[in-house]
Amino acid sequence: MGSLVHLQSWEEKAGWARAQRDASLAKVEPELGGVPDAHNMPLSSQDLPKAVLTPREIEITEQYTITKLLGLLRKRKIKVEEVARAFLRRAALAQAATNCLTELLWDEAIERAKHLDSLPEPRGALFGLPISTKEHHGMVGAMGKNKAVTTSASFVAWVGREHGGSNLLYDTFWDQGCVFFARTTQPQTIMHLETESNVYGKTVNPYNRELTSGGSSGGESALIGMRGSILGVGGDIGGSIRCPAAHVGIYGFNIKRVGTTGFRTPGAGKETISGCPGPMTVDRDGLELFMKVALSAKPWRVEPSLTVKEWTPYTFTRPPKIAVQWWDGVVRPHPPMTRALREVAEACRKAGMEVVDWDCEGLSHQKGWDILSALYWPDGGKEVLGLIKESGEPILPLTKFIIHEQPTVKELTQHELWQLCVKRDEYRARYAQAWSQTGDGGNREVDVILCPPSFGAATPHGQSRYWGYTAHWNLLDYPAAVFPATKVDPALDIKDLSYVPKNSQDRFVYDMYSPERFRNAPVSLQVVGRRQEDEKVLAALVEIERAMGRA
Amino acid sequence: MGSLVHLQSWEEKAGWARAQRDASLAKVEPELGGVPDAHNMPLSSQDLPKAVLTPREIEITEQYTITKLLGLLRKRKIKVEEVARAFLRRAALAQAATNCLTELLWDEAIERAKHLDSLPEPRGALFGLPISTKEHHGMVGAMGKNKAVTTSASFVAWVGREHGGSNLLYDTFWDQGCVFFARTTQPQTIMHLETESNVYGKTVNPYNRELTSGGSSGGESALIGMRGSILGVGGDIGGSIRCPAAHVGIYGFNIKRVGTTGFRTPGAGKETISGCPGPMTVDRDGLELFMKVALSAKPWRVEPSLTVKEWTPYTFTRPPKIAVQWWDGVVRPHPPMTRALREVAEACRKAGMEVVDWDCEGLSHQKGWDILSALYWPDGGKEVLGLIKESGEPILPLTKFIIHEQPTVKELTQHELWQLCVKRDEYRARYAQAWSQTGDGGNREVDVILCPPSFGAATPHGQSRYWGYTAHWNLLDYPAAVFPATKVDPALDIKDLSYVPKNSQDRFVYDMYSPERFRNAPVSLQVVGRRQEDEKVLAALVEIERAMGRA
Repeated sequence: MGSLVHLQSWEEKAGWARAQRDASLAKVEPELGGVPDAHNMPLSSQDLPKAVLTPREIEITEQYTITKLLGLLRKRKIKVEEVARAFLRRAALAQAATNCLTELLWDEAIERAKHLDSLPEPRGALFGLPISTKEHHGMVGAMGKNKAVTTSASFVAWVGREHGGSNLLYDTFWDQGCVFFARTTQPQTIMHLETESNVYGKTVNPYNRELTSGGSSGGESALIGMRGSILGVGGDIGGSIRCPAAHVGIYGFNIKRVGTTGFRTPGAGKETISGCPGPMTVDRDGLELFMKVALSAKPWRVEPSLTVKEWTPYTFTRPPKIAVQWWDGVVRPHPPMTRALREVAEACRKAGMEVVDWDCEGLSHQKGWDILSALYWPDGGKEVLGLIKESGEPILPLTKFIIHEQPTVKELTQHELWQLCVKRDEYRARYAQAWSQTGDGGNREVDVILCPPSFGAATPHGQSRYWGYTAHWNLLDYPAAVFPATKVDPALDIKDLSYVPKNSQDRFVYDMYSPERFRNAPVSLQVVGRRQEDEKVLAALVEIERAMGRA
Repeated sequence: MGSLVHLQSWEEKAGWARAQRDASLAKVEPELGGVPDAHNMPLSSQDLPKAVLTPREIEITEQYTITKLLGLLRKRKIKVEEVARAFLRRAALAQAATNCLTELLWDEAIERAKHLDSLPEPRGALFGLPISTKEHHGMVGAMGKNKAVTTSASFVAWVGREHGGSNLLYDTFWDQGCVFFARTTQPQTIMHLETESNVYGKTVNPYNRELTSGGSSGGESALIGMRGSILGVGGDIGGSIRCPAAHVGIYGFNIKRVGTTGFRTPGAGKETISGCPGPMTVDRDGLELFMKVALSAKPWRVEPSLTVKEWTPYTFTRPPKIAVQWWDGVVRPHPPMTRALREVAEACRKAGMEVVDWDCEGLSHQKGWDILSALYWPDGGKEVLGLIKESGEPILPLTKFIIHEQPTVKELTQHELWQLCVKRDEYRARYAQAWSQTGDGGNREVDVILCPPSFGAATPHGQSRYWGYTAHWNLLDYPAAVFPATKVDPALDIKDLSYVPKNSQDRFVYDMYSPERFRNAPVSLQVVGRRQEDEKVLAALVEIERAMGRA
């Protein structure tokens, strides 16, 4: 592997980054046998593991919940190294199938696993648990100071750039005994709801390679959707955890409680709307585990923008009251999404919950998007466009979409910025008032909103051009969790040919749908709580899943 | 009283505002007798009430704590109207003595009092309690929708401007049964640590009219320092509650828990540093009462920037550990301030507390100020300078000081703003780390810092040119309470003639001091807690005052 210094063109630099990744994958041992070559990959990657991995590897990576696996590790009924090797190999397979990795930490993970196995006593809440991470987060501290870590955040201009400084969140996980083993892809600008960059190309959905795994944490979702990881760290500012989690039928949680100290992201210091890391997991308990461990380190003592509050589990003393948002007044969800809402709402009702409609047409989510899209880029996108220009890499279509094609985006004066923040706060206040009013006139106030995390199942590549179903909650700063509900069934999810789209976005989304295109793709739902009622959202999710017949 | 419409010059408009104020004061009945005319006012106003008010008025306004007076009101041992009239008359006297009011709410307060007296049962946590308020806050909702309220925020350009919209905080107090009775002055731009405007002139200190009552809530402090009010609402973004409270020896508390919905302030939507209303009171319990009542309304459900947290009283289970900041590394406090620190620290030590030094020279408070002063005016001050220009009123020297004379102030690009916010966050992180490190090596972590709220007692007019002792905690977003400690005693507080100032600010402050100039002026101290440890600050204040021999 050559040095980066002599490379001139953006293609050479991107090629260098991919060569680094490939070299990290070449360490896999034993080599993966029986993986189809790139041109012969099946549409769905779900059957590949059984063909490639050993029964024991399948058992380790598939047959345990996170809690169960942690229990086995802590009781030393299974070696950390054996678990690490199984996930490393499965992650390598996930990479072959979906192109989700920027680096496999083969040597580092095995060294770490051996160290943990050598301890006289298992230590830490995450003892031996493999954790995958979004690349731009970096992880210098956790990987030890002698390891040179580079972080590009998928900008060619940053390829090969050393990641200085430590990362509070990952240091915490490290202290609690985890094993970092894989780093995952993100799209150009980290601001697409898909995952494509000029450095690593396109990440695809493990259920259907013609669909996206979502974004921006789409490397994580593809990896976890293959069970090449069972707990990963994503980040969300407009849906970047929830959209990809939804698209592969895993769990994701967006809350603003965990810090970003040590991450490499454009827009540092921008206060209009802020992103936050969070969990992406194969089961619900993983979300809570992540939060408990992350907050046990009291990150607010280090990062002074975080709320000073431990993780404080909430329990409903009576069934929660749920408001169903059937659509957001802008874009009508596809039939499988509406069916998922209907089925889950019905299950909740049967379980004794009060279920009402969340009619938000009067609240104009479109107006919310007009505010939010401007707030994403108060510099008119100058910084990230400059980074793209610096290397000469092309601007990808979804970058153009989220910067150039948003009529609201422009470089603001300070006064324009203030006015926009006032509008944002007024919008938030109005929404909060609407929520409070559900409790007027002797009614019980709504506990959570049940809504789509996207207009449908995973979208075909290049078509993630409507953010409203996730980004709206970032605008409002409301906690939101995503969970799997069903899969697309062409027999049930028939296109409504009589529907007349309400606007151009609605038409774009309507035209996209045909049942066959999405057959068997996971369909997920989203539970949203009021601001800072993070724990209540997870408690509601417990009740909802119980109503759905899950443990 | 004429209409504003035909007035042309700024002097005429300011005159109109003063005529409005005078008309509101002319309603006082019986008229105040025995008030010296403006040219014959004594240096200290402290003996005026006994000469002007009735013994019963003195009793009502002076001889009860807030809790005690509330108890009498609730038990109906005293009429709300009698209390209101006593405070109205004393407030009018305070106006004559210190020029602290923009409006006396004579009719409104008496009408309100009569209404409360007419209720079959006393209702509300503030039943019958008179509350004074800083003018720019407005109070439309609380005063009833048919009352035309104007709010100028001391800008001539805004004189006579109707105050639309309601005010969450004041609505809450109103719902809890209070009586609003007086509105108080603030300086031009609301960004001086004194209180002078072209609308209302200069507010003076009730202990010494050659000294300032502080600012920007200096109308409140002068009024409460005269016991023309016992509980008032100020606001703080750089010391605007704490500086004036300190200068008149009352209590003040700066925390970011209470909303500003409905206030009229320049800089709406600016997120770099935000101000917040808070209590200014004659006793410590008043601070906690204010917070409890303000938060009982769950303002975070209405104003979506507020932390979702009830007021949660804190109790020390062992004596707090106190760090004394003898100076801030920039400006050496005057001798009476250092004596106050020494006496209180000594009392704390005697009461069994661990008392250590807060050595902050390495943390460079000057660097903090360089960041903060720029963050106050990311628009280079354009908005407020524009407001001043609009009417043609002169720019006052302390406005020039805080905008033109700060080398850091300029209109920022978005990227410059982001960089500055990063610097702010790094500074905050470094300070938090320093605080955490007090707990290293088996030591107990410091609970609170005890420090000066100013370099000395109240400053002579026009000389409040050093904000470091209060504004630093705004930069860090640390809660801070101010309480009275002692008074200047020329026999004890001798000038150190051998001291060599360290820099030009230090020289300015050093040169200002001579014991006689400040004789008998109140000297106050400040208790500061870590971010969001608001309740702990008040708990520490309880312990400290107990150590000082107070109840």
